[in-house]
Amino acid sequence: MNEEEFLEWLFRRFGLSISGPGDDCAVLPGGLCVTVDSVVEGKEFGKETEGFWVGYKAGAVSLSDLAAMGARAEGLLCAAVVPPHRRSQVRELVDGLVAACCRVGAKLLGGDYATGTQRLVLTTVALGHSNRPVPRSGAEPGMVVCVTGALGGSILGKHLSFRPKVEEGVALSRLGVAAMIDISDGLLLDAWRICRASRVGMVFRRESIPVSAAARQLSRKSRKSPLQHALSDGEDFELLFCCERSVYERARNIIVPLFLIGEVVEEPGLWIEDSGGRRRVEPWGYVHGGD
Amino acid sequence: MNEEEFLEWLFRRFGLSISGPGDDCAVLPGGLCVTVDSVVEGKEFGKETEGFWVGYKAGAVSLSDLAAMGARAEGLLCAAVVPPHRRSQVRELVDGLVAACCRVGAKLLGGDYATGTQRLVLTTVALGHSNRPVPRSGAEPGMVVCVTGALGGSILGKHLSFRPKVEEGVALSRLGVAAMIDISDGLLLDAWRICRASRVGMVFRRESIPVSAAARQLSRKSRKSPLQHALSDGEDFELLFCCERSVYERARNIIVPLFLIGEVVEEPGLWIEDSGGRRRVEPWGYVHGGD
Repeated sequence: MNEEEFLEWLFRRFGLSISGPGDDCAVLPGGLCVTVDSVVEGKEFGKETEGFWVGYKAGAVSLSDLAAMGARAEGLLCAAVVPPHRRSQVRELVDGLVAACCRVGAKLLGGDYATGTQRLVLTTVALGHSNRPVPRSGAEPGMVVCVTGALGGSILGKHLSFRPKVEEGVALSRLGVAAMIDISDGLLLDAWRICRASRVGMVFRRESIPVSAAARQLSRKSRKSPLQHALSDGEDFELLFCCERSVYERARNIIVPLFLIGEVVEEPGLWIEDSGGRRRVEPWGYVHGGD
Repeated sequence: MNEEEFLEWLFRRFGLSISGPGDDCAVLPGGLCVTVDSVVEGKEFGKETEGFWVGYKAGAVSLSDLAAMGARAEGLLCAAVVPPHRRSQVRELVDGLVAACCRVGAKLLGGDYATGTQRLVLTTVALGHSNRPVPRSGAEPGMVVCVTGALGGSILGKHLSFRPKVEEGVALSRLGVAAMIDISDGLLLDAWRICRASRVGMVFRRESIPVSAAARQLSRKSRKSPLQHALSDGEDFELLFCCERSVYERARNIIVPLFLIGEVVEEPGLWIEDSGGRRRVEPWGYVHGGD
């Protein structure tokens, strides 16, 4: 059972939040948004990753979920399970948590400290409010698809030091975007989550997808093209959203950078379009008939 | 650095909640109470503990923190880090979480699923509201000290299956109790936390301390007396509180069982009193001049 299956099952059985299954936060009456995420040593960060950046990432990951709902970031709590080799780094962990909070105007509210594992586990809870929580399920055919930054190669550093785009998320919520997610598992996979929740498809224009410098750098050593990195790499934590074109026109004056990368279509699925035509692509990056 | 030191340091540096350092929940404007706790395999439960009871305990521990603040229990979130040998038990874990919620009228709001450790880690977040959050710091000399149930020997079963005393906590908050905590680390140690936060001491009447059947059962095999178990065993999750005697007189008509076990005194410290006099006792259970 993977996370998607787990969450789907959990929400099918006990779907008690007023938000939909798989949304980035639970939304309570009054617009209170709450989210919880764990980062685990050896998965989301390495054994050698500095304590400060572990704390920073743990906080930023949850705060990014608030951003994806269009919620202000207000508070953060952290439960730490600290193995022996990390005991001397607790202060740095907390400094990192506080730094992530500072970057988005949130406050560290409290914590829990435990031991008993060989790997560091930090679980963070982010709290905030949204007057207009943006679900994943609001995309409609004809809307445009946009992203708030260049993609790919986050493993070279951005996966630890990214700024949660809370400010942008709040602004986009106010402007009236219809569906939003933060890109944690790759553009295509997270786009597919919006498609599935909204029962639509998306067509991306190949030349419009913003490829990061890190994606180009990584492609020199990997066997993938920079574009493949931009399509499939995870942990960029940029916001991916769908909205009416008029909303995009207003948003582009407020949010920089902002890239219009495609449009929402009726038929479920993902496509990439260039001068050579339109080719179907799988959420995990496989391009049908591609090279 | 132990949890107390960690939390003290954390709150001294970043004491941003309107509640005091070391309170059971962070309290936000509007009376929103939030708490986070991790339970770790090999520490708070065993490798053989059934998945259902692991989930139940993880939920109940956080919900008990709401009880200790006098907050209604509204929502629970859970982040699970699931090792290979527990993968087949995810449904039972969630059933346990839901059962804990059901017992106190809360709802399971969402979750996060991760892998990467050899031991199961469940981190739960409980959310609720209190019109009158009860801190640890409100005890004053002359008040009585009470507890909501018999103590000791929870390791024989109650540490997994206890009911979080949310209903009692809410009633006690309304009645106006001055200081409250849930007994997670033993009567004396948690009493000492109230004393420290309130800058007072407590005298317990030896014959008034309610000793559980489990404490008596355990003492047949341990080298401790039933009373020692009642004073020092952790994880009973009963509520320990201080209030004016008139408040106690009203509370005893509403909350059953309820035991008046001592009184608050001005001099910081803990004492146990019986027909032989008053003897000082350390928070970890050592009785000065005791046998």
